[in-house]
Amino acid sequence: MIVALAGGVGAARFLEGLINVVPPERVTVIVNTGDDIELYGLYISPDLDIIMYTIAGIVDRIKGWGIENDTFNCLDMLRTYGLETWFLLGDRDMATHIYRTFLLRQGLRLSEVVRILSKALGIKTTIIPMTDDRVQTMILTDSGVLHFEEYLVKRKARDRVRGVLYKGIEDARPAPGVIDAIMNADGIIICPSNPVVSIGTILSIKGIREALRKARAKIVGISPIVGGAPIKGPADKLMRGLGIEVSAYGVAVLYRDFLDYFIIDERDSHLIDRIESLGIKVFVTNTIMRSLEDKVRLARLAVSIIGLSRM
Amino acid sequence: MIVALAGGVGAARFLEGLINVVPPERVTVIVNTGDDIELYGLYISPDLDIIMYTIAGIVDRIKGWGIENDTFNCLDMLRTYGLETWFLLGDRDMATHIYRTFLLRQGLRLSEVVRILSKALGIKTTIIPMTDDRVQTMILTDSGVLHFEEYLVKRKARDRVRGVLYKGIEDARPAPGVIDAIMNADGIIICPSNPVVSIGTILSIKGIREALRKARAKIVGISPIVGGAPIKGPADKLMRGLGIEVSAYGVAVLYRDFLDYFIIDERDSHLIDRIESLGIKVFVTNTIMRSLEDKVRLARLAVSIIGLSRM
Repeated sequence: MIVALAGGVGAARFLEGLINVVPPERVTVIVNTGDDIELYGLYISPDLDIIMYTIAGIVDRIKGWGIENDTFNCLDMLRTYGLETWFLLGDRDMATHIYRTFLLRQGLRLSEVVRILSKALGIKTTIIPMTDDRVQTMILTDSGVLHFEEYLVKRKARDRVRGVLYKGIEDARPAPGVIDAIMNADGIIICPSNPVVSIGTILSIKGIREALRKARAKIVGISPIVGGAPIKGPADKLMRGLGIEVSAYGVAVLYRDFLDYFIIDERDSHLIDRIESLGIKVFVTNTIMRSLEDKVRLARLAVSIIGLSRM
Repeated sequence: MIVALAGGVGAARFLEGLINVVPPERVTVIVNTGDDIELYGLYISPDLDIIMYTIAGIVDRIKGWGIENDTFNCLDMLRTYGLETWFLLGDRDMATHIYRTFLLRQGLRLSEVVRILSKALGIKTTIIPMTDDRVQTMILTDSGVLHFEEYLVKRKARDRVRGVLYKGIEDARPAPGVIDAIMNADGIIICPSNPVVSIGTILSIKGIREALRKARAKIVGISPIVGGAPIKGPADKLMRGLGIEVSAYGVAVLYRDFLDYFIIDERDSHLIDRIESLGIKVFVTNTIMRSLEDKVRLARLAVSIIGLSRM
């Protein structure tokens, strides 16, 4: 079994390649839920949905999130009712939020809900939220403390970042199966996701970082930072705000206590020595994933590095 | 102030005429909520929405319910998740259910929610649910006890009706403003709605029937039964199931203790004597509402009967 730690779009792109390289049912994805947010009484899990839609093959490939060919009439009507509609929820997408909220209100845990939704979408890969407890990634900015989605989507990441707070993290336990999956994995992949608010949040859950340190499997990461900037998203602003060097090296430092291998982009080959001085073996390739071939190639490299090429 | 008791489509058509005859802000509509149903955790009020959408001018005029030019992508996705989707909820319509459910969960009463939604839609007419308490119209059939919408929409009114039960009616009180509106009305109109499961449900709320009997205003009804059959809906099956004659006379009998005037269709002029023997004065006209002109003409007649033509 391969275990992947994942955030949103970047991770989803990589995972699309991964399930083309190894059988999808041999992959377990542990997903960040720190971006989860309630809007209009609906429980929304942005990263879980991106991963789920992508693996199910129904994601909007242009945007990287939401469902393909979706309409936005419900949201338009919510706007007519005078509500804020900065978080773009499509009509098909809305069904996910309605059904998830319905199941959660019936007392099901988020991990059980994800299992039900995944099964209905024909997903063979195991998707587990990092926790069934509520954790909210809050961004401390000059304009006050903002929910991550409010910082990113509503305010378009324009506020100066002063810090990051994982609200509720002290009481959050890993969801059932998370620690077991890590401890029993044949290989572990840290997807090219935001190291602060995606992977960083997962790592902050009690017991997960320790499990990665103790896991017998080899752990390979893919740098989300290429040439000093993230492929997508506000990782640079967040890293800078926390005083972290915005580079593949900066990311490697964050993972140094458990990472065995790190895949960085060709443009960052000048960082090899610095990263390897952390005790992490570096592999260099083109990490930009445009086509399915790009994704498959990158996934194949990651899988071969952790010695599972013939799984 | 004119007060109208209303169910769904038939009432909505009449009310569209009424607000063209008298200023919309001079009309108060008391609406049946016995058809309200929870689906996927969303609180749905079919009659309230039909009335609201019609008065707001956004109703789907062909169907008589839902919002014009709506799509059904959310429902389609709920079907993908394996849920029953016999109750057709459009994407724009879904926004109403999401927002209403959100407000109800915050502790607002249904009547407060209706006020908020109406205001956002620019409605000047006062719309009040018959009660803020939960009443469910249940149909006793050979196939068991069914929620009215299940009987009507899911099973297409094909089950033999044995009886009707207003679940929760004992504890239901009229919503704030209902009794006041009736007692202080200048004229009262019983819309051409189902006399059993629309008007009948409203009349079963403690205090409403008594208020109609005591009201100083004249009360005029419009028969929903024309030539022995309803214009729309299952009124004939329900009336027959309860042993009520399926005719304008049968409806008049149900309202005899408070009705002053009854407007019946030309095709039913042979019923005049029988209805008038109940102490109800009958007016005969073409009651079929196809065009706005039809609606306005019928509304004008009703208004003139209760002596409010110059309001």
